[in-house]
Amino acid sequence: MSPRPAVRPGGRSARVQRSVHAAVQELQAEHGRTGLTVPLIAARAGVTPSTVYRRWGDLQELLADVAVEHLRPDEPPADLGSLREDLEHWAAAFLEEMSSPAGRAYIRDALAGDPDGSNAGQCSAYAVEQVETILARAAQRGEHVPGTDVVMDHVVAPMMYRVLFRPGLLDAQYARDLVATVFYRLMPLP
Amino acid sequence: MSPRPAVRPGGRSARVQRSVHAAVQELQAEHGRTGLTVPLIAARAGVTPSTVYRRWGDLQELLADVAVEHLRPDEPPADLGSLREDLEHWAAAFLEEMSSPAGRAYIRDALAGDPDGSNAGQCSAYAVEQVETILARAAQRGEHVPGTDVVMDHVVAPMMYRVLFRPGLLDAQYARDLVATVFYRLMPLP
Repeated sequence: MSPRPAVRPGGRSARVQRSVHAAVQELQAEHGRTGLTVPLIAARAGVTPSTVYRRWGDLQELLADVAVEHLRPDEPPADLGSLREDLEHWAAAFLEEMSSPAGRAYIRDALAGDPDGSNAGQCSAYAVEQVETILARAAQRGEHVPGTDVVMDHVVAPMMYRVLFRPGLLDAQYARDLVATVFYRLMPLP
Repeated sequence: MSPRPAVRPGGRSARVQRSVHAAVQELQAEHGRTGLTVPLIAARAGVTPSTVYRRWGDLQELLADVAVEHLRPDEPPADLGSLREDLEHWAAAFLEEMSSPAGRAYIRDALAGDPDGSNAGQCSAYAVEQVETILARAAQRGEHVPGTDVVMDHVVAPMMYRVLFRPGLLDAQYARDLVATVFYRLMPLP
């Protein structure tokens, strides 16, 4: 992402962001990706094209920004009472979201408009945050927990690799099998 | 990728592919990505723009095709005499290539021009092929070997996830640590 002014919540900047993001989604829903241009988006959002260019750089960076916003989790991971259940539930939901046609398109957009890797880094930061919430809760319950990187490397990474590079074979059982591998093979020694 | 005629090696189709791929690389080397267009590439390659559009669809699909060609391994993985060494050597070289600026750009191109996932699938198929060569050689030596998917999920996937989503921390030691995890934690029981 290009450097851009920080958003003042409730200010003009936040209003512009909301209306431009909404315009992108409306136009994509109506016409798909084809023919989407900055002038078209600006017109729908009621701003000038130069406002969009100044803030987002180009269409690809704007689409990446919209994608990252969509990939942001809406809520903390469910608390089902045990680490195993919490991880299985979260991983299965994450895989279902990421492997959906919309999820795949957002990931591709986030990676494409990303010369410096900051959009993709933000997607990963969201996953790290969710995983850390689950692990911290389990540790508080007194459960034995793996490190965040173990979960990222051996549960999140295999799922995302298959979503991007090996479509097919992507059901909740695959997510649960990866969590089982962490439990039976990759836990730190007590 | 759009459906396109199979390449007859040595025929006109192969010549067109070689000259168009060469034109893309020359123009990228001279000017970077900016301003790259199908007419410019066609002119450099000595073909008509419609030849390019007919065969590749659009610029993004052409760049994806060039990227996949670049990500194709040049040779079989080195045979160092043991599974552990072969996997460590291959994983470290793979990580070095994929995390280089050129490698990252090719991966992004392969993913971007990929509405149906076939380019990215081809990248993964190359890695599977290399891993299978290493495992088959080790099995022939009488070594105990993990399954291909164990190596893809727990060595290749974590490296690619970090390349795409968590830049930083990407040295040969990380590759060797992942291989060690397979050896100490993820081997099938004998």
